[in-house]
Amino acid sequence: MKTSRIAIAGFGGVGRATASLLLSRRARYRKVFGVDVRLLAVCGSRSGAKSPDGLEEEQLGTLENGLSGPAFIEESGADILIEAGPSDFRTGGPGLAYIRSSLSAGRDTIVISKGALVHSGRELRELSRGSGAILKLSGAAAAALPTIDLMEHSFKGCEVLEVEGILNATTNYLLDAMTTRGIGFDEALREAQLDGFAEADPRNDTEGWDTACKLLLLANFGLGADLAMDDLTVEGIQSLSADRIGAWRGQGLVPKLVGRLWSENGAMRAKVGIQTYSLADPFANIRGKNKAIRIVTDAMGETLVIGSGKEPLATAAAALKDLEHVLAVRAG
Amino acid sequence: MKTSRIAIAGFGGVGRATASLLLSRRARYRKVFGVDVRLLAVCGSRSGAKSPDGLEEEQLGTLENGLSGPAFIEESGADILIEAGPSDFRTGGPGLAYIRSSLSAGRDTIVISKGALVHSGRELRELSRGSGAILKLSGAAAAALPTIDLMEHSFKGCEVLEVEGILNATTNYLLDAMTTRGIGFDEALREAQLDGFAEADPRNDTEGWDTACKLLLLANFGLGADLAMDDLTVEGIQSLSADRIGAWRGQGLVPKLVGRLWSENGAMRAKVGIQTYSLADPFANIRGKNKAIRIVTDAMGETLVIGSGKEPLATAAAALKDLEHVLAVRAG
Repeated sequence: MKTSRIAIAGFGGVGRATASLLLSRRARYRKVFGVDVRLLAVCGSRSGAKSPDGLEEEQLGTLENGLSGPAFIEESGADILIEAGPSDFRTGGPGLAYIRSSLSAGRDTIVISKGALVHSGRELRELSRGSGAILKLSGAAAAALPTIDLMEHSFKGCEVLEVEGILNATTNYLLDAMTTRGIGFDEALREAQLDGFAEADPRNDTEGWDTACKLLLLANFGLGADLAMDDLTVEGIQSLSADRIGAWRGQGLVPKLVGRLWSENGAMRAKVGIQTYSLADPFANIRGKNKAIRIVTDAMGETLVIGSGKEPLATAAAALKDLEHVLAVRAG
Repeated sequence: MKTSRIAIAGFGGVGRATASLLLSRRARYRKVFGVDVRLLAVCGSRSGAKSPDGLEEEQLGTLENGLSGPAFIEESGADILIEAGPSDFRTGGPGLAYIRSSLSAGRDTIVISKGALVHSGRELRELSRGSGAILKLSGAAAAALPTIDLMEHSFKGCEVLEVEGILNATTNYLLDAMTTRGIGFDEALREAQLDGFAEADPRNDTEGWDTACKLLLLANFGLGADLAMDDLTVEGIQSLSADRIGAWRGQGLVPKLVGRLWSENGAMRAKVGIQTYSLADPFANIRGKNKAIRIVTDAMGETLVIGSGKEPLATAAAALKDLEHVLAVRAG
């Protein structure tokens, strides 16, 4: 039986969930693809674990210091890298070094963190083309919500005319709380932080950068554009007042933080900002931590998708969907 | 350049739209797949047209009597059949003869009509496996609404736990008119027939059979089940009174004709009937001729998709999505 050797770089909540889900699906991989999938190595920023025969669940709890970095992954002998580290779109790090070395070596690479893809997307696409390594990014684009899948697979042959998405769960949760309960931004944020729904430094979400990153990935990897962050207009929800929301409520309108892609004079345009929707619009009813995307194509009209997967499991499942697509190609 | 030879059997509105869309995309097929796609033959129930060099748009208007039937398709030399004929799930005809002969000969087959797939799905799957011919059915399953795509591609690796769908546009349009305007079934039907939104004999839609057919295809082709129509409980909307709808409206409930799949004691169960939804449920807001599907999986939670493509273009585009997936395999 063919063997497929996996390494996971980045071992916080998502990396850990991905490892466990992968191990639990080994029988499926043998049955469906005829492949013996082994988890050869995992690493966080400073420590890791490895085994040439494949790690088991009970070995994932205690990591050894010093086992980390692109060279550690290289030496593990993995055929496929799943990159699930923290993400900085202004530098691409720390994922960029892992992804770059992996694609250069011809290793199929499944990316969950957005930073490197936003920062160096063109370079990584070229590395992938050059070495023949497959580069997948479902977990980065909007996790369990199918987005690039739809453009690449379900709408194949159609021209995508417009995309509109509620792509960030934290801001949707905050806006939902502000709208339905009449509380202000600061109070909603404090509650969300206490409940673990918002980060200690929430600006990446609240200022719209996370939405902008996802939008950029949809444009560049789903629709063949070549946008940089500077090409986007990005506004967040941090300055939105309870009064403003109250006034909208009086008009039957619900605010959402939305990323939009559209074509103008043959060029792709992208924008992140607050849009308001009437109650009859499905976007007005995207609740709590749900996400949604609306895609308009020339021949299939408008399609709207609402996703509500639980994290970190949903993101892990999105990355392992990518893994199955890689296995299908490589085992074929 | 490789040539791909297409035949279309069934030449009503959908077959005709498929032919035109196919011809308009020939430059795309050359560019994306490196394939010269030619439409060698088209036929309705009694007449057709053929050309070994490929038909052009202006040749599709005048068909010649006698050019029809599975033997006509055989003799055309086509590599790929698109079957778009009328559909009878009680006999499988007339599509069944075309699809059977096509798959037996190893010809990749894209099916738009549901009848044969519902009537003889198992036989057709076995024929496909035996000859290596690809069998695709996006146009039959719910046209532009991605259904089997999601199960096979976007949720790959996940277990589908439950499916719920508003799969028939005509009944959704009728129920929507009855609910929002307080009119009875007979009046709504008469209006829909005048507007061309319902057929002269509407029972296939109104009694739930069309929904049941689509549900069966999702179960058997999307989820590997082996259900026959007798395994389904099927109820339609034909006996629904305006009073009943009024009473629901008083409770804030909206009725929809829904097909449901779920697992019970390891076996798949399927049912078509009226379900009511509260106004906050996205299903309550599926308007007019739109369709929707809600799929629950173990690892990605709940995903809801709403589609609103215009017919016959959307169905033609769904069939040609299948064609691109076939071209990708064959040209690869």
